[in-house]
Amino acid sequence: MTTQQQQRPTTSIGRSTAESIEVCGHDLTRDLMGEVDFAGVLFLLVTQRLPDPGTTRLFNAVLVALADHGLTPSALAARLTYTGAPEAIQGAVSAGLLGGGSVFLGVFEDTGRMLRTITVSPDAQDSDLESIADTLVDDYAKRGKRIPGLGHPVHKTADPRVTRLLEIAEQEKLVGPNTRLMQHVQRAVSRPGHLVPINAGGIGGALLCDLGVDTAALRGVALVSRAAGLVGHLVEETHTPLGRWLWDTAEHNVNYVGSSASLDPRSA
Amino acid sequence: MTTQQQQRPTTSIGRSTAESIEVCGHDLTRDLMGEVDFAGVLFLLVTQRLPDPGTTRLFNAVLVALADHGLTPSALAARLTYTGAPEAIQGAVSAGLLGGGSVFLGVFEDTGRMLRTITVSPDAQDSDLESIADTLVDDYAKRGKRIPGLGHPVHKTADPRVTRLLEIAEQEKLVGPNTRLMQHVQRAVSRPGHLVPINAGGIGGALLCDLGVDTAALRGVALVSRAAGLVGHLVEETHTPLGRWLWDTAEHNVNYVGSSASLDPRSA
Amino acid sequence: MTTQQQQRPTTSIGRSTAESIEVCGHDLTRDLMGEVDFAGVLFLLVTQRLPDPGTTRLFNAVLVALADHGLTPSALAARLTYTGAPEAIQGAVSAGLLGGGSVFLGVFEDTGRMLRTITVSPDAQDSDLESIADTLVDDYAKRGKRIPGLGHPVHKTADPRVTRLLEIAEQEKLVGPNTRLMQHVQRAVSRPGHLVPINAGGIGGALLCDLGVDTAALRGVALVSRAAGLVGHLVEETHTPLGRWLWDTAEHNVNYVGSSASLDPRSA
Amino acid sequence: MTTQQQQRPTTSIGRSTAESIEVCGHDLTRDLMGEVDFAGVLFLLVTQRLPDPGTTRLFNAVLVALADHGLTPSALAARLTYTGAPEAIQGAVSAGLLGGGSVFLGVFEDTGRMLRTITVSPDAQDSDLESIADTLVDDYAKRGKRIPGLGHPVHKTADPRVTRLLEIAEQEKLVGPNTRLMQHVQRAVSRPGHLVPINAGGIGGALLCDLGVDTAALRGVALVSRAAGLVGHLVEETHTPLGRWLWDTAEHNVNYVGSSASLDPRSA
Repeated sequence: MTTQQQQRPTTSIGRSTAESIEVCGHDLTRDLMGEVDFAGVLFLLVTQRLPDPGTTRLFNAVLVALADHGLTPSALAARLTYTGAPEAIQGAVSAGLLGGGSVFLGVFEDTGRMLRTITVSPDAQDSDLESIADTLVDDYAKRGKRIPGLGHPVHKTADPRVTRLLEIAEQEKLVGPNTRLMQHVQRAVSRPGHLVPINAGGIGGALLCDLGVDTAALRGVALVSRAAGLVGHLVEETHTPLGRWLWDTAEHNVNYVGSSASLDPRSA
Repeated sequence: MTTQQQQRPTTSIGRSTAESIEVCGHDLTRDLMGEVDFAGVLFLLVTQRLPDPGTTRLFNAVLVALADHGLTPSALAARLTYTGAPEAIQGAVSAGLLGGGSVFLGVFEDTGRMLRTITVSPDAQDSDLESIADTLVDDYAKRGKRIPGLGHPVHKTADPRVTRLLEIAEQEKLVGPNTRLMQHVQRAVSRPGHLVPINAGGIGGALLCDLGVDTAALRGVALVSRAAGLVGHLVEETHTPLGRWLWDTAEHNVNYVGSSASLDPRSA
Repeated sequence: MTTQQQQRPTTSIGRSTAESIEVCGHDLTRDLMGEVDFAGVLFLLVTQRLPDPGTTRLFNAVLVALADHGLTPSALAARLTYTGAPEAIQGAVSAGLLGGGSVFLGVFEDTGRMLRTITVSPDAQDSDLESIADTLVDDYAKRGKRIPGLGHPVHKTADPRVTRLLEIAEQEKLVGPNTRLMQHVQRAVSRPGHLVPINAGGIGGALLCDLGVDTAALRGVALVSRAAGLVGHLVEETHTPLGRWLWDTAEHNVNYVGSSASLDPRSA
Repeated sequence: MTTQQQQRPTTSIGRSTAESIEVCGHDLTRDLMGEVDFAGVLFLLVTQRLPDPGTTRLFNAVLVALADHGLTPSALAARLTYTGAPEAIQGAVSAGLLGGGSVFLGVFEDTGRMLRTITVSPDAQDSDLESIADTLVDDYAKRGKRIPGLGHPVHKTADPRVTRLLEIAEQEKLVGPNTRLMQHVQRAVSRPGHLVPINAGGIGGALLCDLGVDTAALRGVALVSRAAGLVGHLVEETHTPLGRWLWDTAEHNVNYVGSSASLDPRSA
């Protein structure tokens, strides 16, 4: 192996020596612990910048908004994993996070990716954004693609988290071009009498884009938030379990139909 | 399946209806978002209580202290997983968390479990704690068990994170009986001229016990913190990767020795 | 980094060059593919020996016995994970495997570990084994520990897989001292009119010990077997899903009780 | 919850009662254990059909071909996870599998998906296949997409596993239209003097399509195979570890560069 200096990979995340520990160029014990909150350090880890107070409040609100959503498939998978391996809670948390794919948490990233295909000037007029949004919606329709970040099975008219996140972003003067574009996309998709709501993933993705969070980090931020909810579910599972109830329920209610028709696609 | 009311399992974590979302009995959008920081909501999820300001500061500091520790096996596993599956960052985060077992993050839980075998009164005298610690250390020695939460391969005399966490806990008047007992355990193990340091997992476990965090939640809290560091590493991996360098390094430096002696324990 | 030859780690598992690929000292394409079945290669990977025909038949039977057990928590966790991340089937398989801990698959390893605390001569008499088993059972009772590998919630008198595995092992003359000891342990625990059955994990662990499989490999072998069942469940999930039904069932049947009593162990 | 018969989901995978255990409509202990090898049961689980002897041999050869490939990122991630959590081998296996995404194991599925966009008659002439392949390659080129299943970083002219799999498939008369199409695709892409090799994922995907394995199952089958290799690496890791060596190597060779330039895409 060559160990020539110039070919070595680099990292900016952290280093630990006997005397000090650094995270993203900051002294951990002197500059971060007791000074910056946990959400602020997560922000630092994904942007290499410390957040200002407004950003801190909004970023915390996004994390809080996504932390839990009740007995989702993700929470149930975590609890069922705990049933079989209570000694390894890291496995149960991971099982829960692994459901954070395209159907749920992917919305964050998909929305961010869509918005960032377009470079919008911070001082774009509403009329400009309107026409950009119309073009974007047309383009998705032509390609038969679904616009990410819109619609919700339960919150059919407005997701209360979205309303609140926008309120906080306005209070902190952090509504930027990505969020405004997302609102115009919503209007372009909605029809009179039929408002399609922006969902939590959609607004979260747009707001984090305006905060300068990398597209690749959007789903990651949502995963940290979701990890908090999963740990809550697992602590509860140690006291009032529902894993075995769920197992019994499945065994008693799912019909075993013996051999299915062959799955062989050649006979289709 | 019986669906009689009294046999149904219960949850206190969360619920979502068309109108509102609740987390642990609190209205998410009105009482938590914009009002309580993310660490506070994690605290709520694992204790069912909102933290006061001192607890919030100390709990944040514990989370910040553990978020990252550079290129640990955990961070490397996450990066290598990303090399093979960049489209599924949830898998890479999970791969990193799965290393949070007995050797590293388990220290948290092991320390908490040890301290909680003993019920210490909040107003115990130092002389009482001294004799309790001596008995506990003797007992571990007799059973040939290692005391958790002590010693560190790099920070041989004092882990700077431990010093800082104790400082913050003292500022917030949150040094309780578990932490004091841990300090007496340290003294009971150390010899003149050879101080065995408390490590970050040890002090974190003790402080969280004093904050009333359930033993089952200790490792979980550490996992949420670690998830933040892992997402930082993975965002960096998308820009300046080291996964393939690590692969090459292993392939070029590990000797392939063909067939090893049989692993059959019958021939031992 | 030092790259001196003598400090480099070694591997016997495999190597790949432009000309050939080796697995455990065998040429993959010439000696293994088309010549040795997949179970035989798994046996090679964990013992560094190719199995003889009797071992091949018994090892396959153990793997087949454990491959699936219907809608277990493990299968449900995999299906729920697929619901959220259908694009990453590796995550769903992993979520299923993560439930393979102490409660279910751990039995394999626990049984092997128990049996291997004792060195039994291959030509031990039944009378010797009887007294060894009595001592072992007494010892577990004194320490308040549960004997692993015995009892089953459904198969209360005899697990049909155990009967069949013993039959195959006898046909192949592969009942060795570990399996005989396990049978004596069973007798030592049972009472007249109340036979405690050996379960599948218990007999699997004992038989694999007799085949010379390393204790550390026992749970691993069970995981490979279980992976097959999980992939079966996931392919079915793509055609006839039950993940969303399970989600609905949980949401409609689990009572949300708002705030629980505080989980603070200090108030206990 | 409604429990009306017609709304219950169904399963064909397995059922367990006190008397018998069924897998895909077959009695586990009577019809499968000792009668069908493990690969055959995996085939049953993913196709709902038992394989004939030729299919059994070829399917085993595909599984054997993919079981291990030395110190891949996947194997390294598994070993590093074991370093931190040796008590939970299921976590280490999972960490390894989680790298089985688009870059490596996805090739299987991508190739199958490409081949199955076209319905090729089992008795298609070579001249027909030639023109189908030309059209397909043109279409990929126009859309700027890479043809899956071709090329290999190490085996630049021919992957020895591919040669051997084709040999076995011919011996068993199991080269079907998907595999023949794949060979024509290879020819359409190659230029005189520059043969682009089919890789192991590509030929595996094509052969499994010809065996009637569902597209959704292709990556799953590869994951079961890979699990065997990972368990081999982990058993070796318990005896001759390399996880800590890899950690040291990374810590000593990766340059910590303090704060990186901000990752903020707004400043790009």
